[in-house]
Amino acid sequence: MLKIKKTINTHLKHNTMKINRYQDISEIDREAKKDYIDRHSAFVHCADNAIANEKFKVKVQVGDEYKHPDDFDHFIQWVQLWDGERFLAEASFSAGAMGNAPANLEVDFYIVPTKNMKLIAHAYCTKHGLWQSDEIVVTV
Amino acid sequence: MLKIKKTINTHLKHNTMKINRYQDISEIDREAKKDYIDRHSAFVHCADNAIANEKFKVKVQVGDEYKHPDDFDHFIQWVQLWDGERFLAEASFSAGAMGNAPANLEVDFYIVPTKNMKLIAHAYCTKHGLWQSDEIVVTV
Amino acid sequence: MLKIKKTINTHLKHNTMKINRYQDISEIDREAKKDYIDRHSAFVHCADNAIANEKFKVKVQVGDEYKHPDDFDHFIQWVQLWDGERFLAEASFSAGAMGNAPANLEVDFYIVPTKNMKLIAHAYCTKHGLWQSDEIVVTV
Amino acid sequence: MLKIKKTINTHLKHNTMKINRYQDISEIDREAKKDYIDRHSAFVHCADNAIANEKFKVKVQVGDEYKHPDDFDHFIQWVQLWDGERFLAEASFSAGAMGNAPANLEVDFYIVPTKNMKLIAHAYCTKHGLWQSDEIVVTV
Repeated sequence: MLKIKKTINTHLKHNTMKINRYQDISEIDREAKKDYIDRHSAFVHCADNAIANEKFKVKVQVGDEYKHPDDFDHFIQWVQLWDGERFLAEASFSAGAMGNAPANLEVDFYIVPTKNMKLIAHAYCTKHGLWQSDEIVVTV
Repeated sequence: MLKIKKTINTHLKHNTMKINRYQDISEIDREAKKDYIDRHSAFVHCADNAIANEKFKVKVQVGDEYKHPDDFDHFIQWVQLWDGERFLAEASFSAGAMGNAPANLEVDFYIVPTKNMKLIAHAYCTKHGLWQSDEIVVTV
Repeated sequence: MLKIKKTINTHLKHNTMKINRYQDISEIDREAKKDYIDRHSAFVHCADNAIANEKFKVKVQVGDEYKHPDDFDHFIQWVQLWDGERFLAEASFSAGAMGNAPANLEVDFYIVPTKNMKLIAHAYCTKHGLWQSDEIVVTV
Repeated sequence: MLKIKKTINTHLKHNTMKINRYQDISEIDREAKKDYIDRHSAFVHCADNAIANEKFKVKVQVGDEYKHPDDFDHFIQWVQLWDGERFLAEASFSAGAMGNAPANLEVDFYIVPTKNMKLIAHAYCTKHGLWQSDEIVVTV
């Protein structure tokens, strides 16, 4: 394994992969930037409280006021739902599932919580990378 | 590639992988078999008609009257949604997402149809293999 | 649930989704058909024998003599590896991972068998549907 | 959407999800910590240079000197391969694919580069979250 270690030592960079985050678009002036930020942002929509051991609906949505393309070379390929560091579920899509037209991608997951959760969604755009939602605290 | 081809020729079998299908459980006598068939069956629940180029909700559900375990060694790992031979979307789950208790796994996909669809769902159980729903025809 | 059941009863069809199978292309005359069949076919390449509890390499390859496009609207989106009815692993790809040029998609899985296996690969083409390899028997 | 926005405003936290990073275990004293860090770390193993438009092998491996369990409730569920912010491929696994015994999960992807790459791997452990490799620069 010496050779591999050498490769790692000479070629690695410690930069973390860029993960884009939500920004409040009401604080952004330029229309093109508002659109860019909003249409990629992942949102977790759910109730503030859940009952332990009962089914709980969590909508993951991409974009709020602006829609994202569904072109073959530019679409939302997958979203993931996390509870803190725990991966709960992923939904992946073929280009064209949104009719090849701009849309707000949505998927409703139904999970069964047993304790408080910190829900986070990730969304991946094939041109503009990974986007992480704000964290939603759910009291169980 | 000669060696590989030889391997293929001597070891292949043309059997198709078993894909389990829905059966009407009202026609099944034995309670254990009713439970086994129902809790694994994949269902597509949606409206009969859709409007072209508008968002359309499709629920994929596993089981109807009977629940499926969510144990670490026995759970529904993923479901897929197909329009005929066209793969639309997949949702995959971690064991425990249903609270480690029996449940009917559900996920709502939102797709945008442009023409008639023949929706089919697949569900994979880590102990009992792949299950395919009946086909639901949606007029667009 | 009455309404949903009615939907199922009136709209379902019992047709199984089409899964394409390997054909020996030396027995096919037409060049275009040879190309079509070969470039979509999934192959499992591995040794005939494995040692229990030791790592075992399994190559899943799509196409043999003919290459498949890697265009945004036409590419191999995912492959799966099955041992009979047991799902072992899946690899999914972004369009462009093969340089947007024709290629034979390959992925090497390393699994650890404990008993005889019947390996089957699935490959999904975004234009031409699901393709299933022949079954490779591995003696452990 | 007002209600949802309110939920977001009162319940969100801007904390980023924890992504664990590689540490040089030769600098870690405690054996249990060495083991914990090493067995979860994702590594990208590949050549330093690639030829444009030719197939290029990239091994993603989890752990180097220490093995990770493959228990039903504790296993490596998926790995991803990224080129900077561009998602290339993912491999996901069923618990038991490594024979339910400790192992270093490996998968070989074959990609076709067209320009310089910054390869990064992610690995997800069902008990200990997401781990990101160092970045490997490949000159094309």
